[in-house]
Amino acid sequence: MPSYKLIYFDGRGFAEPARMLFHLAEVPFEDVRIPFEELMPGKQSEGFLEMKDKTPFGKFPVLSIDGFDIPQSSAIIRYLAKKFGYAGKTPEEQAWADAIVDQFKDYMESFRQFIYAQRGGKPEEEVKKIHNEVFGPVKETFLRELERILKKNRSGYLVGAGLTWADLVIADHLHTLENLKELEVKSLEEYKERIYSLPELRDYIQGRPQREM
Amino acid sequence: MPSYKLIYFDGRGFAEPARMLFHLAEVPFEDVRIPFEELMPGKQSEGFLEMKDKTPFGKFPVLSIDGFDIPQSSAIIRYLAKKFGYAGKTPEEQAWADAIVDQFKDYMESFRQFIYAQRGGKPEEEVKKIHNEVFGPVKETFLRELERILKKNRSGYLVGAGLTWADLVIADHLHTLENLKELEVKSLEEYKERIYSLPELRDYIQGRPQREM
Repeated sequence: MPSYKLIYFDGRGFAEPARMLFHLAEVPFEDVRIPFEELMPGKQSEGFLEMKDKTPFGKFPVLSIDGFDIPQSSAIIRYLAKKFGYAGKTPEEQAWADAIVDQFKDYMESFRQFIYAQRGGKPEEEVKKIHNEVFGPVKETFLRELERILKKNRSGYLVGAGLTWADLVIADHLHTLENLKELEVKSLEEYKERIYSLPELRDYIQGRPQREM
Repeated sequence: MPSYKLIYFDGRGFAEPARMLFHLAEVPFEDVRIPFEELMPGKQSEGFLEMKDKTPFGKFPVLSIDGFDIPQSSAIIRYLAKKFGYAGKTPEEQAWADAIVDQFKDYMESFRQFIYAQRGGKPEEEVKKIHNEVFGPVKETFLRELERILKKNRSGYLVGAGLTWADLVIADHLHTLENLKELEVKSLEEYKERIYSLPELRDYIQGRPQREM
């Protein structure tokens, strides 16, 4: 079996669905968690800067497979999902999972804008404006799309009849929204809870480091 | 053979690599091109609004396969690339092509910001500021990454020994930068020209509707 190393910051963020996939597939991996302090300019250690410099795009997460590095979270998670059987059962299901994750990536542009404003020390009024005029409307649209997809698909999963990586990406972000008190859609709370309660995920989720996002 | 319909605006943009793939594979498809005027609020036709309403995410491009709709350009192009043999030869090549396209998608955030400012009637000074402080630095980094990837890979392609969908996505955007006089990297101009001159693409590219972007 190849030796896997997943390198990311010490949060859930863009890497958590990859961690979940390793646990789902019961495949051992090295879970390298970089302290968030390394993100602060001027506070970065030499070891971190050296590691960052060696990544393909100077960004994390990176998945290292026997020394071969894959950057970009979606590429990493899709790769593992294919290996472990969670990418979708047909080419059409795979494309649909891809599309949902790309739509999520588009939505994340406004989520990031809000979080950066909130955590970056912008004046409260500006944060509120970004929340109400940028993030809020984009979030509402995206959550409505998720609701519609789930309602139409009926299996309780986003794609086809079973769990795909799209469920892991979405459910884990819904948990983040929940933590931020930004998820007020009952059917999506239930969906997230259903994914989080899957017997093959439950223990991992209960035992993992608890992080706000 | 399934019946394919690709719906997008009358530009290259996010759909052109899909069009190229159909031509590479010599697979017939319906190339539905919506006039750009339909993007202007208040000027939209009923037919357009109805069609938009039926798309999975209210956005184009959409690929319709015997009535099954895939949204999101990367999902569409990856789907066709897999069908037609241009997704990469191994799981690792596929992941690397995915990662390059996702990195491109990140870069496009700043490209879009610049184009919207420029075409959206913002004051010249503001456009210049966005160009020099936002788009410019992100573009430089991204182009340097592409150069490094090509230099390291040596085959003349971004991934492995042959053409993948990542080359189509990147080369077609480099052509856009060229049209905007924003591509001043000789090795990338040569790379784009090499992809555009491939015998299996040349005729299509010469005969296609000429669009700035």
